[in-house]
Amino acid sequence: MSRLQDALTRADANLDAALERLFALLRFPSISTDPAHAGDVNAAASWLVDELASLGFAAELRPTAGHPMVVAHWRGAPGGRRVLFYGHYDVQPVDPLSEWRSDPFEPRIETRDDGSKLIRARGASDDKGQLMTFLEACRAWIETAGAPPVDVSIMLEGEEESGSPSLTPFMEANRDELKADLALICDTGMWDARTPAITTMLRGLMGEEIILHGPSRDLHSGMYGGPAINPIRVLARILADLHDENGRVTLPGFYDGVPEVPPEIAAQWARLDFSAERFLGEVGLRAPAGEKDQPVLNQLWARPTCEFNGILGGYVGEGFKTVIPARASAKVSCRLVGDQDPHAIREALRAHVRARLPEDCTVEFVEHGASRASVMNAALPAFEAARQALSDEWENEAAFIGGGGSIPVAGHFQRILGMESMLIGFALDDDAIHSPNEKYELRSFHKGIRSWVRILERLA
Amino acid sequence: MSRLQDALTRADANLDAALERLFALLRFPSISTDPAHAGDVNAAASWLVDELASLGFAAELRPTAGHPMVVAHWRGAPGGRRVLFYGHYDVQPVDPLSEWRSDPFEPRIETRDDGSKLIRARGASDDKGQLMTFLEACRAWIETAGAPPVDVSIMLEGEEESGSPSLTPFMEANRDELKADLALICDTGMWDARTPAITTMLRGLMGEEIILHGPSRDLHSGMYGGPAINPIRVLARILADLHDENGRVTLPGFYDGVPEVPPEIAAQWARLDFSAERFLGEVGLRAPAGEKDQPVLNQLWARPTCEFNGILGGYVGEGFKTVIPARASAKVSCRLVGDQDPHAIREALRAHVRARLPEDCTVEFVEHGASRASVMNAALPAFEAARQALSDEWENEAAFIGGGGSIPVAGHFQRILGMESMLIGFALDDDAIHSPNEKYELRSFHKGIRSWVRILERLA
Repeated sequence: MSRLQDALTRADANLDAALERLFALLRFPSISTDPAHAGDVNAAASWLVDELASLGFAAELRPTAGHPMVVAHWRGAPGGRRVLFYGHYDVQPVDPLSEWRSDPFEPRIETRDDGSKLIRARGASDDKGQLMTFLEACRAWIETAGAPPVDVSIMLEGEEESGSPSLTPFMEANRDELKADLALICDTGMWDARTPAITTMLRGLMGEEIILHGPSRDLHSGMYGGPAINPIRVLARILADLHDENGRVTLPGFYDGVPEVPPEIAAQWARLDFSAERFLGEVGLRAPAGEKDQPVLNQLWARPTCEFNGILGGYVGEGFKTVIPARASAKVSCRLVGDQDPHAIREALRAHVRARLPEDCTVEFVEHGASRASVMNAALPAFEAARQALSDEWENEAAFIGGGGSIPVAGHFQRILGMESMLIGFALDDDAIHSPNEKYELRSFHKGIRSWVRILERLA
Repeated sequence: MSRLQDALTRADANLDAALERLFALLRFPSISTDPAHAGDVNAAASWLVDELASLGFAAELRPTAGHPMVVAHWRGAPGGRRVLFYGHYDVQPVDPLSEWRSDPFEPRIETRDDGSKLIRARGASDDKGQLMTFLEACRAWIETAGAPPVDVSIMLEGEEESGSPSLTPFMEANRDELKADLALICDTGMWDARTPAITTMLRGLMGEEIILHGPSRDLHSGMYGGPAINPIRVLARILADLHDENGRVTLPGFYDGVPEVPPEIAAQWARLDFSAERFLGEVGLRAPAGEKDQPVLNQLWARPTCEFNGILGGYVGEGFKTVIPARASAKVSCRLVGDQDPHAIREALRAHVRARLPEDCTVEFVEHGASRASVMNAALPAFEAARQALSDEWENEAAFIGGGGSIPVAGHFQRILGMESMLIGFALDDDAIHSPNEKYELRSFHKGIRSWVRILERLA
């Protein structure tokens, strides 16, 4: 048998043990946005260091101003070629907890009527299951060939779900150590359950919290209603004014730097088997709600958005309380494309808010991350090599696709480390990654491991 | 000494014991909107029945479809004249609990630097402290003269803070039993700390909850942002469109039945020592936010409003979660005046919402009460008699004033029982009745008892 075949066979034989390892990682409630879970985030990181060390990596827990970074190196492969793998071990919050049908941090395998299996847990898909596909691929190589086919460095972050505040300082402080020939990022999805994909275009992100303060305390609306300013009313106006009737964002300069989709990409997208009805239908929707003059795939991959992710003010318990609240707040995020500048857009948003602030309201802004969009250089030979490896494993042609989400680290790799990134992942659209009942297909986990086994060989 | 003087002296001597009785009532967390507190609501009602029975009233706990009604009668006074006293023993929720400086259900006396004292607890002012002023006045008369100067019936409700769903069915079912010559309602305030008042004009209320449903589950805004409808965005537009730039409500027909303030009332209001700066300044505000062409007292007492009492959608915890929520909701209430019809206005609000609903959103409406505005017949001799009694007790001319809040029971008494109501209470604007740290002045409690002692005598 070939070395590749040996490694693939080992990956198959290891599957049950690999699942046990993944379950151990999933049991840590490593919610990075919640200070109450800081200890759990740290414990997940330590577990990963031990895991990598036991494989033979030089692995360390590296402190940052926030949650620690896991860094590991395997050096000495022939050829001297080196890849840097990135993943994250923190997870999204789990609320509303009542909507979970099982404990989000007690992973389990569920079997569907058709016999297919899935892994149910918070983080199963985003991103613990995905990052473990790569670690298990390294294991299969190490256990059969004694080493991965290329040198491998690994950087696993614990703050991806909270805006990655420590990521760029860490990269800047450890430039020489981290620089490699290529970055591999496993935090994206397949095109569909049959079609593997390499994501070559990603939207950026600007997150901002707007907190309005009105009266010095909650007021009785009977006693003060009329003359007293109501912060919810002010907030509703501010948010309503952010889009026009065609779904375009009204902030001045918002569309500066937004490019047209290049004709060859548009042509490739047109050939994809994409149905807006099916895509929206899966989540109970029918009518595309974005910019009216844009096709749905453009709305999703190539156009910027401004979304309201949370809003809160006044009495929200059972029943009714006729209160005029002292405060109201909203979490707003913009997905960015092309050369849109997240800092300029944050300033435009703040100016929009201030311009609509009545005399008796004050505003507090809280930054929640800023990253530019990125476009990968898919012309590099590594991209075609990886595409071949994916096509071999899934017995279906792999696609170069756009991505609606933001994976800022790809842009940082380009800017700080001068290194291209290849985004490959095995998540599916229905993985519910930021919702209750997150899952990861067992098939994604198994064939994901096998895919990385093949890709590592092709990159050598 | 006169009979009146005897009763007043007894009221003074009873004060410490009266406070103990009030504290016992305040310790029940009788939050009527919260099903978890149903047992506490019931316990408060039973306590009041025992209290009234021990005074010699024929007192009963009367079941309704919701929380029970406390009904008590004292019959046999010479002259056969009878008053019906109304109060409520349920209280507002206490959230945010973290803003209370002491346990809301462990009442205590606090002393200010100037020596004045206050009673701190949820319900101290709204309405347990107020209703106990009347019960203690009855006690002073019964303990000195053997009976109140007029026959007294008492009806204490347990659902006032949750829209009074059982109130009108109960009145309709017990018309003959409840009908009296005059209703007395103790759920309003003084004009200021020196000036007692009889409220002769009250705004009505229409409460409605709007729940919008969009996608079938919370979505990742990176994966779906753009094409997927965002219910928060739809809700912001709906709320923002409810007022124009002059602070007027835009619902068609909203101002139908809104009268001009009669010149004589406007003249009386102009003579009141009212300062918009002071009124708003107490709660940290400066600029009146109601209809631009209306004086502040009109905004407060004579003009209708549409307020947003609560809003909720998406991720509202710490940090950030880039979710497109499955739902968003708002609690909206309108204060009504003149002949405004709460049912017509509810329909206009629902039509306003439906007209702004995109194809992919559905709406659910939840009713939270409807009452028309009411204007009392202040020309009745009882009003002037009570005004004299109040002026005597407070050694300052009592005023006939308007009220911004809604006390639907006054309208029901007119409509169902054909009976006028006199609204007299001793709350102050800074009692924080629907907010954390509610209080009632000890002076309001003491002089409130004495005021009712005098009013009962004047009504005989």
